[in-house]
Amino acid sequence: MYRNLYNNLVVIGGNAAGLAAASQARRINPELNITVLESGKYISYGTCGLPYYISGYIKRVEDLLTYPKDFFEEKRKIKILTGHRVVGIGPARKELLVNVAETSENKIISYDRLIISSGGSTIVPPIPGIDSSNVFQFRNVEDARKLKDHIDKNSPKKAVIIGGGQIGILMAEAFNKIGIKISLVEMKKRIFSGFEYEISTILSRKAEMENITVLTGAAASSINNSSITIENGEGKKDIDCDLILLATGISANTGFLSDSSIELGKNNAIKVDSKLQTSHMNIYACGDCATVKNIVTGKQDHLPTANNGVKTGRIAGENAAGGNMTFAGSVGTIVDRVLDLEVARTGIGSDEAISMGYEAIKLIDSYASHAESVPGAKKIAIIIIVDTKTRRLLGAQMIGGEGVGKRIDVFATAITSEMTVDDIYMLDLSYSPAISTVWDPVNKICGKAVLALDSKKIQ
Amino acid sequence: MYRNLYNNLVVIGGNAAGLAAASQARRINPELNITVLESGKYISYGTCGLPYYISGYIKRVEDLLTYPKDFFEEKRKIKILTGHRVVGIGPARKELLVNVAETSENKIISYDRLIISSGGSTIVPPIPGIDSSNVFQFRNVEDARKLKDHIDKNSPKKAVIIGGGQIGILMAEAFNKIGIKISLVEMKKRIFSGFEYEISTILSRKAEMENITVLTGAAASSINNSSITIENGEGKKDIDCDLILLATGISANTGFLSDSSIELGKNNAIKVDSKLQTSHMNIYACGDCATVKNIVTGKQDHLPTANNGVKTGRIAGENAAGGNMTFAGSVGTIVDRVLDLEVARTGIGSDEAISMGYEAIKLIDSYASHAESVPGAKKIAIIIIVDTKTRRLLGAQMIGGEGVGKRIDVFATAITSEMTVDDIYMLDLSYSPAISTVWDPVNKICGKAVLALDSKKIQ
Repeated sequence: MYRNLYNNLVVIGGNAAGLAAASQARRINPELNITVLESGKYISYGTCGLPYYISGYIKRVEDLLTYPKDFFEEKRKIKILTGHRVVGIGPARKELLVNVAETSENKIISYDRLIISSGGSTIVPPIPGIDSSNVFQFRNVEDARKLKDHIDKNSPKKAVIIGGGQIGILMAEAFNKIGIKISLVEMKKRIFSGFEYEISTILSRKAEMENITVLTGAAASSINNSSITIENGEGKKDIDCDLILLATGISANTGFLSDSSIELGKNNAIKVDSKLQTSHMNIYACGDCATVKNIVTGKQDHLPTANNGVKTGRIAGENAAGGNMTFAGSVGTIVDRVLDLEVARTGIGSDEAISMGYEAIKLIDSYASHAESVPGAKKIAIIIIVDTKTRRLLGAQMIGGEGVGKRIDVFATAITSEMTVDDIYMLDLSYSPAISTVWDPVNKICGKAVLALDSKKIQ
Repeated sequence: MYRNLYNNLVVIGGNAAGLAAASQARRINPELNITVLESGKYISYGTCGLPYYISGYIKRVEDLLTYPKDFFEEKRKIKILTGHRVVGIGPARKELLVNVAETSENKIISYDRLIISSGGSTIVPPIPGIDSSNVFQFRNVEDARKLKDHIDKNSPKKAVIIGGGQIGILMAEAFNKIGIKISLVEMKKRIFSGFEYEISTILSRKAEMENITVLTGAAASSINNSSITIENGEGKKDIDCDLILLATGISANTGFLSDSSIELGKNNAIKVDSKLQTSHMNIYACGDCATVKNIVTGKQDHLPTANNGVKTGRIAGENAAGGNMTFAGSVGTIVDRVLDLEVARTGIGSDEAISMGYEAIKLIDSYASHAESVPGAKKIAIIIIVDTKTRRLLGAQMIGGEGVGKRIDVFATAITSEMTVDDIYMLDLSYSPAISTVWDPVNKICGKAVLALDSKKIQ
C-alpha cells in the first residue's frame, strides 16, 4: 500500500491553512503521524477578527481562538508544538532546523512529507526610527495583545497608521471607536488602491466624515518617539502621535527557504501547482505563504485571503496524505465591513484587464439595496469590468450600506463559470421588498452593460 | 421597414410585467402607438409590499405605487387606460372586447400586436358562505385598501387565514403585528408545502412561538358571519372569527381567453415559447398569467414571481416591438422575510427530482450566518438536492435569521450554470467575520455532499 511509503507528515504553521491541512490529512489517512510546528504561542485564531478585539467589540482574545490545542491533540491525534520556529530546511535530507522558544536552542525535525503554511508577515519599511517602542505591527494574536496592553496602560490619544489598505482602514475604525484620533498615511495616490478609484473615493470621504485624517501620496520618512515625519510632493510635515501602526502590506513568510531550491513567485510566495505541490515533490504549500491560481488571468498569483487559506489547506492536506484533489483556483473575492459600509471585490480590476490586453469596458452605477418603499434601504455602488469581445464579466466591485457581501458572491460565481453579462442580466435572483429590488442590482448593472455593448456594436 | 407592418401595440395589464413590456417596446421603437389596459384603478404597484401596508410598516398605500400614470404617459408616451377590463378576444380580427368601469359598457379595442400580462387572481374555493362580507382576498391595491379600511373601522380581534403558503404566512405576520389573533388553516399536511418539510417544520414552530395557531390537514367546510367550520381527519370544529382571509393560491387571469384558441398550460397560464410568443404569432404573454421555462426541468412551468414578471415583461415588450430577445428561463428563485426569518428556495425540490427520475440525494445542515466570535450570528438551515449521476446541484432551500436572501442567489447562479457540488464546494466566496464564516455555509453544505457522493461511490 502506498501509504507505507511515508508515515511522518510535518506541517509548518498552526493557523487556518495549516490546521485545515493537518485535519484533512488525518481524515483521509488515520495512520499517519502528523505534527504541526507553530512559531507563536497560539494556534487556530481568527486573524480577520483581531481588529474587533482592539475596538472592544470582541471582549476577550480567547473568543478568537477557534479550536483549542486539546481538540487537535485528542480528537484528531495531531501533535501540536507551539514555540517552534522553522529557521532552515534541508529537502535532500528531509529535515527541518527548528528553533525552540522555551530553550532558545535549535533542533532537527525530520519529515517524510511536508506542508508549508507559514503565513505572511507585515512588511516593515526601512524608515529611520522604525524600531521605536511606539511602533506596532498587527498580524497575529501576539501583536494584538501587545497593542491592546499598550493602549490599556498608556491611553494614547493620537495615532498614525502607515498604509491605507484593508488592515489600515479596519484599524483606523477600531482606534476611532475607542477615541484615538487617527491619521491614515498612504504612499499611493489613494487608499484602498486594490479597488477602482471610485470605491477609494467613497471610502475616503466616509473616513473623513468619521474624523479620520486621510493623507495620500505621502510617505513616512522618519519616526521619533512622539512624532512621525511625512513627505509628500509639497514637502515635509511632522505629525504628533503617541502610537504608530504599520499596515504596510503582507509578504509571505518564506525567508527560511532562502537557502533551499524551493521556487518562489509573486511577493516571495511559494510557487505551487494545482495539487498545491511545490517544486519539490514531497513538499506542499498552502495559505498566505503560497501562490494560488487566479481563475481570471490563469496565472499563479498571490491572493492571501482566509477563504483561499482554508481551501488550499484542505487540498494540500488531502494530497500530502495520499489523496488527489485539484484546486480550481481563486477569483480573489474579498469583503470588509468597515465604517458602516461593506466593501467587496472579485475578479480583476480595470487596470489589470487593460494590462492583460482585454478590450474591456467599465460600468458604474448606484442602486437601492432593497425596495425603497420598505424603510432602511441603503445605497450600493457597483462597478463591473466586461470584456467587449466575449461579453464575459471579468471583475466586479461594490460598496454600500447593506447587502454587498453576499451579492459579490453572485458575481464571483458568475465569473468562475465564465458567464457573459447577458447571462447575468437575466439571472433569476431572489426578490422580496425587504431584501432586494425586483431587478436585483446585480441584474441591473449587467443590463446596463448589455445596452452599452449593443450600442457599441451598432456604431 | 418591418416596423410599418404594425403600429398599434396593446398591453393588457398595468402592473410590473405589463409596464416593463410597454416601456421596453417604447425604448426600442419610438414610433409605436402603445396602449396599456388596466382593469383596476391603480397601475405599477408593488404587490409584494402589500402585507407591509396592513401591518403599518408601510404607512401609505401611495408609497407602494412605483411610478405614477403621468410618468408613463408623459415621459414614455404610453397611453394608460385604467378601469378597462378585457372580457373577450377575437384574434382573427385582432380585436379585444373591453368593459369600461366608468360607463359599465363594453367597447371594441383593436391591436396590431398584443401583449397579455393580465396577472393572477386568488383562487376562490367553493365553500358555502364564501361570499360573506367578512371574507377578504389579498392580491392587489384595491384588496389591500378594502381590508385596511375594514380593519380600521371594525377592529377585528380574531381572524382565520385559509392557506399556509407565502401570502398566508406573510399576512399572519401582518395581522399578528396589529394585535389580531390568527388561526392559519392549511389543507395539506404542512404549511409552506412548496418547500422541503424540514423548512415547513421550522417555520411552523416559529409561527406557533409567535402565537399563531397552525392547523394543518384541515379544510374549511363552511363559513358564517362570525365563524368558520374546519374539518380534519378527526371531525369538525368551529372557529370564532371576525375576519377570514383567502390565501388559497393564485391562478392565471386567463378566463377571458376561454373562447379563443390561445393555448393554456399549467394553472391555466398562457403557453409561451422562449420569445414569449403565444400560440398566435402576434400575441405575446408575460408575468403571472404566462408559463416560463423552468431551467432545471426544461419544461414550461408556472412560476409567478415578480422577478420572472419584469424579465418576461421586458423580453415580451422587446420582441413585440420588433426585437429578438430570448428568455433563458427561471430557476424558481423565491425569498420571503417573515417572522424574523428569511426563507428562500431555488431550483427543484426532492419530490420533483424523484418524480423526474433523478437518482437524487438530499443533504441538510445548519450553520452560523457569520463568525460566532462576532456578536449577532444567526443560525441558517440549508437543504440541497443533488443528482448523484452528474453531481449537479438541482435545488437549494434555506431558512434562517440573516444572510439567506442573497446566499440563495449563489445557488441560483450555480444551478443556472449547471455547476456540480464539487465546483460549488470550492467557490471563492467572500469572507469577513461580520458577514460570513471562512468556509461560507454555501461551500460547507456542498462539501458535505461531496463526501456523501464519494462514500457512495466507494460502496
